[in-house]
Amino acid sequence: MTLAKAYAAPAAGEALRPIDIERRSVGAHDVLIDVKFAGICHSDIHTVRGEWGEQSYPLVPGHEIAGIVAEVGNAVTKYKVGDRVGVGCMVNSCGTCDYCEAGDEQYCRNGMLGTYGAVDRDGSITQGGYSTHVVVTEDFVLSIPEGLDLDVAAPLLCAGITTFSPLQRWGAGPGKKVAIVGLGGLGHMAVKIAAAMGAEVTVLSQSLSKQADGLRLGAQHYYATKDPETFEKLASSFDLIINTVSAPLNISSYLDLLRVDGAMVNVGAPAEPLPVNAMALIGGRRSFAGSMIGGIAETQQMLDFCAQHHLGADIEVISADQINEAYDRVLASDVRYRFVIDTATLN
Amino acid sequence: MTLAKAYAAPAAGEALRPIDIERRSVGAHDVLIDVKFAGICHSDIHTVRGEWGEQSYPLVPGHEIAGIVAEVGNAVTKYKVGDRVGVGCMVNSCGTCDYCEAGDEQYCRNGMLGTYGAVDRDGSITQGGYSTHVVVTEDFVLSIPEGLDLDVAAPLLCAGITTFSPLQRWGAGPGKKVAIVGLGGLGHMAVKIAAAMGAEVTVLSQSLSKQADGLRLGAQHYYATKDPETFEKLASSFDLIINTVSAPLNISSYLDLLRVDGAMVNVGAPAEPLPVNAMALIGGRRSFAGSMIGGIAETQQMLDFCAQHHLGADIEVISADQINEAYDRVLASDVRYRFVIDTATLN
Repeated sequence: MTLAKAYAAPAAGEALRPIDIERRSVGAHDVLIDVKFAGICHSDIHTVRGEWGEQSYPLVPGHEIAGIVAEVGNAVTKYKVGDRVGVGCMVNSCGTCDYCEAGDEQYCRNGMLGTYGAVDRDGSITQGGYSTHVVVTEDFVLSIPEGLDLDVAAPLLCAGITTFSPLQRWGAGPGKKVAIVGLGGLGHMAVKIAAAMGAEVTVLSQSLSKQADGLRLGAQHYYATKDPETFEKLASSFDLIINTVSAPLNISSYLDLLRVDGAMVNVGAPAEPLPVNAMALIGGRRSFAGSMIGGIAETQQMLDFCAQHHLGADIEVISADQINEAYDRVLASDVRYRFVIDTATLN
Repeated sequence: MTLAKAYAAPAAGEALRPIDIERRSVGAHDVLIDVKFAGICHSDIHTVRGEWGEQSYPLVPGHEIAGIVAEVGNAVTKYKVGDRVGVGCMVNSCGTCDYCEAGDEQYCRNGMLGTYGAVDRDGSITQGGYSTHVVVTEDFVLSIPEGLDLDVAAPLLCAGITTFSPLQRWGAGPGKKVAIVGLGGLGHMAVKIAAAMGAEVTVLSQSLSKQADGLRLGAQHYYATKDPETFEKLASSFDLIINTVSAPLNISSYLDLLRVDGAMVNVGAPAEPLPVNAMALIGGRRSFAGSMIGGIAETQQMLDFCAQHHLGADIEVISADQINEAYDRVLASDVRYRFVIDTATLN
């Protein structure tokens, strides 16, 4: 058993504060990670505030984890002490269903185990990465390649894989026109990755306020969606649209921006049902789809790809006592583009 | 110029009645077809009644046409007098845009020319297949293979290609579980074609009233959608759902029937926007898509496939003076499964 320093929400709606938690003893297949950095994801905020369902408190959020292996179980083969590693949104799955066997652990038929706020095999509640240490079974630990610093790598474990997976699956690459809706934590990684894949990237953002950033990140075009001319000008032009915005958009007007056989993939999940005009689909053999993070092998592939192309997240490193302020700034979209907690400040 | 007997709507909402129309002189690339049979498609009714926008009257509907070549232009190479041929939902397109060049004439960037109710190159309004004769440029004439009688082949030109195209594109075949929503004109062809492709076919219909038919047509399972247990029992089980119903359904509850990476493809087009729960997509990397008829080469492929597998439509042949009664019966879903007009009765 390892005692860890952490930051937890004591109850729904309350500010996060320091807490000591216990990490389980390192089992045969476990890896003890000395967490160095943990990204702040928008979904951390929704979850700890109880907006996505009831939670067990105190709750330590964080599923964008980067650190160094401190100890390994005696059956561990993939990692050794000192390795640079990461943990993302899930820490286990059944491993035997058809989806797990296909490498889609995130869709495990028996339920993947979330990195925080989920009921673990022993009945305990998982606690996330805003913490000095975490113990994870080796199959759900990722290797962070040389060439990616741990701080800029941390957000890749959620924001990176969430965008890499649909970009790869729906064929972003040379000759393809890809639009990224929203330039936040997810969107800025989507732009970097799509550009590195060789696609022609367009950012569709509410205003032009982040245009310079978008172009610097790799986009070739940038349009304001509050300008109705944008939708006329770009009609039937994209092969793929990745929608990173969780607020409800007028989906049909975005579908009209797709060429024949184009797809719009939501990675954000608005709570409200989205009205879709069937003719917007039929009239161009278009698809409206969704995608949730990615499998473990695919996440490793994403990390290797990002290291090869030197794609870290654009981050603002904060100390633990700035977490609550950072939450307010995330909700105000006042971050370019990811807060990352330096876990040394937890001690 | 050829004088043709036809049945036309004299105005929106009025009963169809006999009319004489002129068909253009046979140009160098034209084929004059002696129409033998014309199917009645639900969309004929919407269109002539002005429910899908204003029309020019009198209007002769019909885009499921089967007949015999009576004359060919001097530059025609594909057909000769006496050939068994068909015409579907379109009779021309630009031929030069990227979609036309890819064989997706139905999505022509300059607008495909509808078989009836569309403005032709010379400014005249196209008139459809409830007619003794039609003149069509050879590139939009299909060959009806031996082994398919003309009467049962006629409905394939719309109902056949509309279902064949998405079934083929989304990979219906051995090992795939395919659900067909609705057992009408489109649905009954979808069941036949999907079964012939080797898929395991399930019909999802409001009630079990057509269950015996569904199983005879090739389905292995048949469920009533008015029974809520259907949606529990079939959760996460289909690779592909073809929705042939034009009335608005609870799309999200059908999306939940798809396994990971599954797609639901609408071929019917409800006028009302359809509310889609983004989590139903994201939670299974599912797609909600649409598809509109198919290209010319693909339509020929469908006819060849149907001939090879002896798949004609299940039809009720009627005389011209029964058209108005047939319309009422189509609207009441009282047809198994397609009315086909014997055009000999137009004379």
